[in-house]
Amino acid sequence: MAGVSTDPNKLGSIIFANMIENRKKGMLGANVYAVNPVHDHIGDQRCYASIASLPEAPELLIIAVPESLTLGLIRDAAKAGVRAAVIVTSGYAESGKKDVEREIGRIASGHGMRILGPNTIGLIDTWSGVDSLFLRPTKMLPDGKEISSLRRPLRGGVVVITQSGHLGEVISEELAANKVGIRALVGTGNQLDVSIEDVIQYFADDPYAKVMAVYLEGLRDGRRFMEVAAHAAERKPLVVFKVGKTQVGARAALTHTSSLVGDYGVYQAAFRQCGIIEAASVQELIDYSISLSLLPEAAGRRAAIVTNAGGVGAISADEAEKAGLQANQLEAEAQRRLRSVFRGEGFASNAALGNPIDLTASASTDAFVAATKQVLSLPQFDLALLLPTHQTPAIGTEIANKLSPVILEAKKPVAVCVIGNSDLASRIHLEFMSNGIPSFPTPERAVRALAAAASRRDCRNEAASFRKVVRIRPRASSSESRLSSLEVGKPLRSCGIAEPRSVVVRTIGDLGKLRGVPFPVACKLLTAQPLHKKDIGGVMLGIGTSAEAESVFSRFRRLAARRGLAFEGMLAQEMVADGTELILGSTRDPTFGPVIALGMGGTYTELIRDHALAVAPVGPAEVKKMLELTKLGRILGGYRGEPKVDEEGLCKLVSSFSRILIENPSIEQIEVNPLIATTTSILAVDARMILKKDHR
Amino acid sequence: MAGVSTDPNKLGSIIFANMIENRKKGMLGANVYAVNPVHDHIGDQRCYASIASLPEAPELLIIAVPESLTLGLIRDAAKAGVRAAVIVTSGYAESGKKDVEREIGRIASGHGMRILGPNTIGLIDTWSGVDSLFLRPTKMLPDGKEISSLRRPLRGGVVVITQSGHLGEVISEELAANKVGIRALVGTGNQLDVSIEDVIQYFADDPYAKVMAVYLEGLRDGRRFMEVAAHAAERKPLVVFKVGKTQVGARAALTHTSSLVGDYGVYQAAFRQCGIIEAASVQELIDYSISLSLLPEAAGRRAAIVTNAGGVGAISADEAEKAGLQANQLEAEAQRRLRSVFRGEGFASNAALGNPIDLTASASTDAFVAATKQVLSLPQFDLALLLPTHQTPAIGTEIANKLSPVILEAKKPVAVCVIGNSDLASRIHLEFMSNGIPSFPTPERAVRALAAAASRRDCRNEAASFRKVVRIRPRASSSESRLSSLEVGKPLRSCGIAEPRSVVVRTIGDLGKLRGVPFPVACKLLTAQPLHKKDIGGVMLGIGTSAEAESVFSRFRRLAARRGLAFEGMLAQEMVADGTELILGSTRDPTFGPVIALGMGGTYTELIRDHALAVAPVGPAEVKKMLELTKLGRILGGYRGEPKVDEEGLCKLVSSFSRILIENPSIEQIEVNPLIATTTSILAVDARMILKKDHR
Repeated sequence: MAGVSTDPNKLGSIIFANMIENRKKGMLGANVYAVNPVHDHIGDQRCYASIASLPEAPELLIIAVPESLTLGLIRDAAKAGVRAAVIVTSGYAESGKKDVEREIGRIASGHGMRILGPNTIGLIDTWSGVDSLFLRPTKMLPDGKEISSLRRPLRGGVVVITQSGHLGEVISEELAANKVGIRALVGTGNQLDVSIEDVIQYFADDPYAKVMAVYLEGLRDGRRFMEVAAHAAERKPLVVFKVGKTQVGARAALTHTSSLVGDYGVYQAAFRQCGIIEAASVQELIDYSISLSLLPEAAGRRAAIVTNAGGVGAISADEAEKAGLQANQLEAEAQRRLRSVFRGEGFASNAALGNPIDLTASASTDAFVAATKQVLSLPQFDLALLLPTHQTPAIGTEIANKLSPVILEAKKPVAVCVIGNSDLASRIHLEFMSNGIPSFPTPERAVRALAAAASRRDCRNEAASFRKVVRIRPRASSSESRLSSLEVGKPLRSCGIAEPRSVVVRTIGDLGKLRGVPFPVACKLLTAQPLHKKDIGGVMLGIGTSAEAESVFSRFRRLAARRGLAFEGMLAQEMVADGTELILGSTRDPTFGPVIALGMGGTYTELIRDHALAVAPVGPAEVKKMLELTKLGRILGGYRGEPKVDEEGLCKLVSSFSRILIENPSIEQIEVNPLIATTTSILAVDARMILKKDHR
Repeated sequence: MAGVSTDPNKLGSIIFANMIENRKKGMLGANVYAVNPVHDHIGDQRCYASIASLPEAPELLIIAVPESLTLGLIRDAAKAGVRAAVIVTSGYAESGKKDVEREIGRIASGHGMRILGPNTIGLIDTWSGVDSLFLRPTKMLPDGKEISSLRRPLRGGVVVITQSGHLGEVISEELAANKVGIRALVGTGNQLDVSIEDVIQYFADDPYAKVMAVYLEGLRDGRRFMEVAAHAAERKPLVVFKVGKTQVGARAALTHTSSLVGDYGVYQAAFRQCGIIEAASVQELIDYSISLSLLPEAAGRRAAIVTNAGGVGAISADEAEKAGLQANQLEAEAQRRLRSVFRGEGFASNAALGNPIDLTASASTDAFVAATKQVLSLPQFDLALLLPTHQTPAIGTEIANKLSPVILEAKKPVAVCVIGNSDLASRIHLEFMSNGIPSFPTPERAVRALAAAASRRDCRNEAASFRKVVRIRPRASSSESRLSSLEVGKPLRSCGIAEPRSVVVRTIGDLGKLRGVPFPVACKLLTAQPLHKKDIGGVMLGIGTSAEAESVFSRFRRLAARRGLAFEGMLAQEMVADGTELILGSTRDPTFGPVIALGMGGTYTELIRDHALAVAPVGPAEVKKMLELTKLGRILGGYRGEPKVDEEGLCKLVSSFSRILIENPSIEQIEVNPLIATTTSILAVDARMILKKDHR
């Protein structure tokens, strides 16, 4: 421990005190030493002048000294064979000192030493007792009294991985307040060496880690993140909250695809593909960690809602539908049996036993418990939400302790909702939590936490199938580097996407070639400039005769001249029969590399925004999932009596298309819009390609 | 007070004890009497055998006796001139006893007596001291000790109006826990007499009521609700949470319109039209009540976000964008001044002063306060969110009391976010609340509560313009009752909607009439049965010759025969030039009466669901707002270089259309799809009408 000072409020002193405390409690098995070249004792603890003078070579060095002293310490530690260091202080790359970080990294990697930080809250490992959190658990009030200002985490199964120190503490504190313990809290800070991916990979195979909760601001290497995340998600639930959803819009929107592919959109697609459960807020990250760490796996999504108050029951039913849970009606026979149990017991005649199963305010504690027991035994439900409102006179203060054994015996995922802001409300809530039953203060949060638990199986399957997708090595085609942006047909044909019959008309003389294409034809202005041709009048449909085509050609030439475009002629193309217009595009995301977009095409593509994204490459099964995420999927499946499209063929085609940018490093973006799908054909009616700058 | 018993846990005894207590405290000015024919004393309180034997005629009678005894009490009260009664007991209409309720209503209205309930928690009026809440504030633990189980409300300005007793208490308790008082809590119960509309109307003009918070399950008379709600919303904020969002789908979806018009969709439209602020959950209802009752009115939606922690700042920025607040960058000059204030004060060089204005963890309490003061003084911001995270060592425990005067002096709406689950977190939160500054535990909730306050001005304007919409009296056209469902053109023409030139072909002989319409034409099967003609092949476009038209006619005849439809001929219609396809429909909602839907039309109307609803009639200004709610609005405004449509003309046309169902009682639904809008014309290319059963 370097940075211990005579001021007990300094970061290093707080950390040192915590570590000594953990050592005394027996939580920490290793010895703790202070390194301080100035003092030989601080309080009753001895200080050593240097790492070299320590009685044994340390395994871990915690550094809480100013940036200027770090490099020397790292050199000493490397020489002494220290295997890991945590640098909690700030003032490094985030303040412009990138050189120092680079030098630290060089020394560390040369000696096989790993570094967490700098600029991080570091690490709390509740199982080993290592704890570099530099925040005091109490603060001083103006009157001099101490007040508890930060709850220490409890030991448990949740791994909190965070790119914000503050939110890491908040999450761990909130879990502790709910009696849920953590396996570890790791702040990745500047990620000089240890990255968020390293941490996820480590805990994926850690036997004490049950759930990982990640607060994410951004990634450096999206592909590696997806690999380790899928590896982890196959083994245990991985919940991520991503901040920074606002589209920065810095990327030039030269194609529809680049306008559809927002930064956050790609993150969402990546999360889905590798089996991550996405939380919409820090609160949800906490709630999902609670439900996923406590609940058994759900066999399905059929939910029973049991309550003694109509309002919260109705709210839960609304939210269940939104969250994708099915709150099917209690079968008639089950309703009859439920009623018979309570015959003569004052079971309200107006109890509505459909679902929500509303036992009404007259239901006693015992009636609520008995009804719950019966409902949980029904095979028609995979999981349940219980809302025993304790304000009614009929419910006793012992409701939590009477319900808990019934819930635990059922071995189905069950969440409870305890609403209220009184001593009794908080007592009942904590009783449930202490019994290992997730309890939430609003019906909406309870339903969503339950739904997160219900999605676990699908996520594991997603992760597994992601890992099966063949990793295709780039196999650049020999002609690749000589592509011109007008030759978009080449890469398309190579993945099996055909175009309508067409001829290129470069001069008036070329108009004779039109004999090869049956009239009417569609005429399109040819120019290398990337632009939306339709927007400037560069597309004319239904041209019926040679004479008309000739006049269109002249018009395009004038149009190009007026707009200052390089006129490269006109494309005359067979008109394609009515079909569904799709957009299929691929672009390079700075974080995740090649991604694809698939959705409703045509003029209003960007307005309707009915599309799904995926990080490339994708297999046909993933394409099918993408279609399910869009309304397009319903159209292709034969919406309102329209003919169905060959979905299997389309999925294979899109899967091949997804490899274009991987196999052709010179292509920056490629887009087919519209791709017209009919029952018999899938044709690229218009396509555009943008090459990388150095290939143009 | 009727229903006081020797058992202190009975509803009547609890209410009586509360009222006596309020009388003793001086909160209640009136005398309280117990009516009980069996006992002459209960405890030290005298009981009277009947209402007639009371020493004075009561103003209010609270009834907590079983249903069988109520009628007699009501009769006695009516005779004694009692002006109001609250019936808290249940077992009336909700248990099938509608007759009893009807009889009570008859007696009461005959004597000018108003009734609240039955089956309700009744009324807490914190200003008069009337309090019929029958829930005890404490409960007994298994060990015999008492525990606080329900906080009593504080006196203040929020009116809680609820259709669920349980949620009414929960809301009032949560407000009390946040130091926010209520003007009244009213449970409307079965609404035998006093309805939710009556209560809103009453408090609209009550000087103590500052904000109304309504928990709504359903309405009986949507029109009256809108009238009183708009009246109220012009005067004070009206926040509503509506439960029951799930589409029941019971209404037969014979037209696109009826499929677009969900029950909840109409509620949402009605809320918007009459200036209601809609909350998405009970939590939001509470949060919005807090911010709206404490904050001054915002001049605009430009928000400053001040924090000392990057993560919560970023989360707030995301949420602000979602909530329609503008978090514009701090101007360069203001940034420079902000930096200069802290020169030499250890103001972190890496502080990001854009917006979020992140002072970083090194900012002290005083620095945070000074920065806040400066930011709040900037004219570029209308409101602000402060996120002073107290876990950092630099922030002292006195942060709330130091920030509060600065916030209050600024006279701009400011919310704070206090994150954490420690004694200090709750202390700081309550200090802010006690100082009258709304404080929330998550950034998202704080941002949304602030956005609700920022929407107040728009809501008042909405309410005012709603009240200005001329109330049109039905003026049934003389031919109205003789309409056939094929004569849909009549009501359309009467509101200025033209159709393309067309002829009706009833027999082969009629084909000669086609000379009046230029080829190509569109041919449509005519049949009185309501169905989607396109789905069954009953629409053929681009028919170029008489011979083709004849073959289509024969084909339609065969189609009708095969499907068992009454064949009424074929409509041959001029093909309309390319334009934007709209749907414009009107149907009758069981709660709100005639409503209209306007949105993107064409084949995928129901799939794309880009439409806005409104309760009819609407003025042209409201139609413009409907367009702004849809993507259609952007298309009509000239999306991507396409020609603009005559928006003003369209708004007038839709406004006229919105009166059709009001003026024609025989029409159940009418729908134009597509209505094709071009720069020069708006034509009803296809339209359908369904008459009421007794008019068919």
